[in-house]
Formats: sequence, C-alpha cells, structure tokens
Amino acid sequence: MRYAVLGTGIVGRTVAARLDGLGHQVVIGTREPEATLGRSEYAQWQEAHPGVGLATFAQAARDGEILVNATGGQASIAALTEADAAHLDGKVLIDIANPLDFSGGFPPVLDPVNDDSLAELIQRTFPRLRVVKTLNTMNCQIMVDPARVAGEHHVFLSGEDADAKKSVRELLYAFGWPQASVLDLGGIETARGTEMLLPIWLRLMGALGHADFNFHVQGA
Amino acid sequence: MRYAVLGTGIVGRTVAARLDGLGHQVVIGTREPEATLGRSEYAQWQEAHPGVGLATFAQAARDGEILVNATGGQASIAALTEADAAHLDGKVLIDIANPLDFSGGFPPVLDPVNDDSLAELIQRTFPRLRVVKTLNTMNCQIMVDPARVAGEHHVFLSGEDADAKKSVRELLYAFGWPQASVLDLGGIETARGTEMLLPIWLRLMGALGHADFNFHVQGA
Repeated sequence: MRYAVLGTGIVGRTVAARLDGLGHQVVIGTREPEATLGRSEYAQWQEAHPGVGLATFAQAARDGEILVNATGGQASIAALTEADAAHLDGKVLIDIANPLDFSGGFPPVLDPVNDDSLAELIQRTFPRLRVVKTLNTMNCQIMVDPARVAGEHHVFLSGEDADAKKSVRELLYAFGWPQASVLDLGGIETARGTEMLLPIWLRLMGALGHADFNFHVQGA
Repeated sequence: MRYAVLGTGIVGRTVAARLDGLGHQVVIGTREPEATLGRSEYAQWQEAHPGVGLATFAQAARDGEILVNATGGQASIAALTEADAAHLDGKVLIDIANPLDFSGGFPPVLDPVNDDSLAELIQRTFPRLRVVKTLNTMNCQIMVDPARVAGEHHVFLSGEDADAKKSVRELLYAFGWPQASVLDLGGIETARGTEMLLPIWLRLMGALGHADFNFHVQGA
C-alpha cells in the first residue's frame, strides 16, 4: 500500500517509520520540502530512514492511496487545502491529530471543541475524503507499538465509512493492536469524545511524569 | 461524620444512601423540601431510606461537616448560593457534578469547558470552600461500589487543599476504592481534564449499550 503521511513532526515521523518497516511505500508531505530538509533534526532522521520519501502536500496526497493527518491540529485544514481536494477524493484519511491551541501557553486548549471537532471539521471541509479518527489519544510511540504499555488498553475509531474503518482496523492490527483493543465508537461526531480526552491526557502526563500510558475502558 | 448531599437526583440519592449505610449522618439538600417530597419517585425513595434527612440547601449546608455537590452542573452555583456562603466557609465540598448543558439536546455539551471547569468556577465563587473534584467520571452506582466493574480502574482527585483531599481519599477507601485506584491529578485546574471525559463517557455508553464501565489508566 502507498501511504502519504502529512506532517514532519515526531508523530508523523514515528508513523512513517513504522509503515516503512511494515514494507509499505511511504512519502511524508510537507509545505516546503527544501525547508524541511534544511532542519538538521529532520535531515538526520531522513538519513536513518532512506526508504521514506519527502514531497509537497500535493505530491504526497496525489501519490498516497491512504493518507495520515499528522499535522498540528491548527494547521490541518491549511495542509489539506494545499494537498488539493482533487487528490483527496474518495481516499481514506486517518486523522491522528488533535486541535491543540498553544496560543495561550501550556497546557493548551482545544479549538474546535465541545460542539465540534477537528475530525468533523476536516470531514465537512473535504466531504469526499473518508475520514477515520483514531490513535489520537496516546503518545505516538504507543500508537505504532501498543505492547510498550503492558496490559489491555484501547484505541478508538470514529468515522462514517465502514470500509474506511475496516482498512484502518487492518492497519491497527498490523501495528500490533489486538482485535479486542479496537473500540468503534460510531460516526465521526464521536471524535469529539476522543479529542476531548487530551486535557486529561496532558494532566496525567504531568502527574505521572511520563507518557507511557494509555486509556483502558474497564467493563467494555 | 455529618454529610450534606446537595441534589435530589439519582446521583445524590445513591451517594446519600451509601453514606447512610456506612453509618454517617446524612441530610439531602434541595431548594424546596415540600416540593421534593411531593415527587412520588423521591417519596418512595425516602420511605426506603428513613435515616436520610431532607432540608433546604441552607439547612443542609449548615448541618453538614462535609458537603457533596450532586446537583446538576448548570444549577450548582445557584444551589451553593442558596446554601449561603457563611455555611460553606472552611468546609470540604466534594464536587461530583458535571457541567452538562442539555439545552441543545442530546448529547449535551459542557459549559464551562476547555479553559475553565465547574470545579474551578465553584472554587472561585466560594473561595473559602475547599473543593475536591472526584467521582464525576463514572456512573453513580460505580462511584459508591467500584467492585461493580471487574478489574482495576481509576478515580481521579483534583483540588488545592491537601487535607481536604486526604478526607476525600478516606471516604473513597470506605466506598471500596483500593488505594492504588485513587489517582491525584493535582490542583483544581486539573478538573478540566476529568470533566472533559464526559463526552467520551457518553459516547462509550452509546456504543457499549450500558454504563457499567470505568476508565483505567494503563501504565500509571
């Protein structure tokens, strides 16, 4: 499968590396590839992952069969707009981003929130994209290697398209998620619930002093 | 200990019955006791729990050494205002309410949310009250009987006053919570995190078809 991962941060790189390791063709999308390669952190990572391509959002979206939104939540609509709606039509977008707004400092707030969500905003803005929200409720290393956290814990799915959710399920299984750990919440509106987990996630990270934890719904 | 439980709904009654069963003196606070007793549902419950008193918010707050806010979140400030600030000074308020706003239908949204919380609003409005947010992240039957849900699962604590949190911890242990299940998140600001769990709680209830579940932070 050909994956396009939008976003060059630690989340995008972690997912891209894992997809590459699973034998998929992977290209990372960014606004300006030259500028991204000019960042020493990215350049070093790129050297260690020669199999992963780097391209503009539009090129990446054109080449990818399945897209992963790993951009910052406040930049997601702009990135997808640059990706060009014609390259998005009918494709599955795995939305792992959170609409964190750091403009007021730390801890960030969410925008949108409460009566809307980033996943819904993306789905409304690009109605022919098949958006599946998942993996946004944990540290990126756990996303692609759930066994990092011992014991049972959950990953949630929200989306309108059953086939798209099925594809995403298969990918989650390939990442190492047991079938019983994938909890389908329903339509894309349910992403409000998973995005609004971020405030307690951030405060748990503060209280515990680490990010190697995940939510388990006991009794599910 | 003398407890005043503010709120006559299922949450307040469940907590009051449990406190009564533990041998505490319990009075439920309401706006108009006559009107409350006029509701057949409440009158029947009262008959089954003759040890639990019913009084105005002000009388209940005056008599209680520890207060429990089990009012609807949109009515909490009004109830506490009726309780009279002079009866609140220095007392511990266990805030188990959520600021659910059903004015737009189901599922409700939260108000306040994101950059504020009900617990903070109460603490700001009544600065001499020692507010501890807890138990608001689960069904009321699990609050007072955590063994209803098999396996490990968590209850969170948020508040500024260490002694108040200690009293609340003791009560949680008496309810049946194991020590390892009580997770102190820090100051009252962290209640934003636990209140914002409600949107996923509501959607999990929808997806699972029952409310006998609770969150466990795996890796904590």
